Amino acid sequence: MTSRRPTIGVFDSGFGGLTVLKALLEVIPEADYLYFGDTARLPYGSKSVQTVARYAVEAAHFLEAHRAELIVIACNTATALALNQITGAAHVPVIGVVEPGAEAAASVSKTRKVVVIGTEATVCSHAYQKALEAKGLHAREKACPLLVPLVEEGWVNHAVTEQVARIYLEEAFADGFRDADTLVLGCTHYPLLKPMLRRVSPAHVSIVDSAESTARAVAERLGNLVPRVASEERRAKARVGFFVTDSVEKFQRLGQTFLRRPLANVQHVDLKE
Amino acid sequence: MTSRRPTIGVFDSGFGGLTVLKALLEVIPEADYLYFGDTARLPYGSKSVQTVARYAVEAAHFLEAHRAELIVIACNTATALALNQITGAAHVPVIGVVEPGAEAAASVSKTRKVVVIGTEATVCSHAYQKALEAKGLHAREKACPLLVPLVEEGWVNHAVTEQVARIYLEEAFADGFRDADTLVLGCTHYPLLKPMLRRVSPAHVSIVDSAESTARAVAERLGNLVPRVASEERRAKARVGFFVTDSVEKFQRLGQTFLRRPLANVQHVDLKE
Repeated sequence: MTSRRPTIGVFDSGFGGLTVLKALLEVIPEADYLYFGDTARLPYGSKSVQTVARYAVEAAHFLEAHRAELIVIACNTATALALNQITGAAHVPVIGVVEPGAEAAASVSKTRKVVVIGTEATVCSHAYQKALEAKGLHAREKACPLLVPLVEEGWVNHAVTEQVARIYLEEAFADGFRDADTLVLGCTHYPLLKPMLRRVSPAHVSIVDSAESTARAVAERLGNLVPRVASEERRAKARVGFFVTDSVEKFQRLGQTFLRRPLANVQHVDLKE
Repeated sequence: MTSRRPTIGVFDSGFGGLTVLKALLEVIPEADYLYFGDTARLPYGSKSVQTVARYAVEAAHFLEAHRAELIVIACNTATALALNQITGAAHVPVIGVVEPGAEAAASVSKTRKVVVIGTEATVCSHAYQKALEAKGLHAREKACPLLVPLVEEGWVNHAVTEQVARIYLEEAFADGFRDADTLVLGCTHYPLLKPMLRRVSPAHVSIVDSAESTARAVAERLGNLVPRVASEERRAKARVGFFVTDSVEKFQRLGQTFLRRPLANVQHVDLKE
């Protein structure tokens, strides 16, 4: 990595990774970004290890071929199921969202008991549990498969979504985890539900957003090699290119909810299938 | 088609088509079946025409290569978006679910006003609207993107699902469609919600299940060419082979909810991607 503007590749199954890109743009405005959303094959959250690994490695190769110098796996499911395969297949550094999320949880939890919510595949992989137990924490992982479709339906502040979230969190913060004091948002869609999750979580619980902690981990990795002049001027200059495997129009429409700004420069790509 | 047992290929993006297979096994027990579920790339309901057409044509070719003599597109989205492309690419007869559903609606509706519920992609294609208008009916199409994930979460009898269905149907049976008297289930997941949809629909409404009407259309197409000895003995003999692009275990687990019997003979396949 040199002192010129680095190009960071950001990969997600679809839209959720845009919450990570948003955090990256805030924390590292001095970089340029390539975002790859595998929208034709989303969601990954209900799929098997083999399938997710194959898709994720293809995406990493695509980003490398477009000169990404560091790849952020902005998808909890892909990180949880396939980080090792992606790291093994890539020729540039790869950073996932699980380890930064687990580190942030370890730094805030006092009771050493943490609840992690995510997709079915992320939970089944126990990637968060392993990362948290390695830091001496106890983890309960809870799959919340309805939250992604509810966010994508735009029901971010809807009574139904609040009811669903309440059901999931009551099941999670129960029995041995009544005194868990940290909730990790183990899916990049969930930051959009943060105000609601705050309301339905027990009052003593801190919420850890993997998007923010991942952006900080990337900044640390880039270290002093990048000129850190986080002025508005530099921020305005960050170039972002988007590549998606399904409809460009739909990505632009849904994507701005996640990124909180219009998405220009979106191209459709076919992978080699 | 000869008087020996025909092999019928059934294609769906995942699990929902099993409700069509179930209806086919009841109406035509004298055939053998190959079921292709593109579970690695599901759901189709939120994807674009180009992507769905490409996937569906690949699936049709796969079924032909495995000696299917007639192909049933047991997926409303694939039928709505890509029936012409599939029919053009296939060398055997192709039957979709939209036309049989529309025909059944035309035969029961007295007010000539019909509500169709389906995925976002099916609704955007207006395939049902066109088919119904061609028969002189007025149609209101309503996308219900949360119903599929709710069914796949297993919340078939859950209060949340009933609340979601009520919201969708109240929006659909409003204004000029208060006197609509027919509800078409334009997605193969929805038959699992039929008792609940019955409860939340206006009392005067008839429910049309495309799965059943499609099975009858296939039987008509096969006509007298197939020995129609619908005895228990023949029914027991129907051979069904399943091919899926994602996890076999998950397909067997979730699939039996749809088919209402255990799924044996499931193989994993990779398409050419």
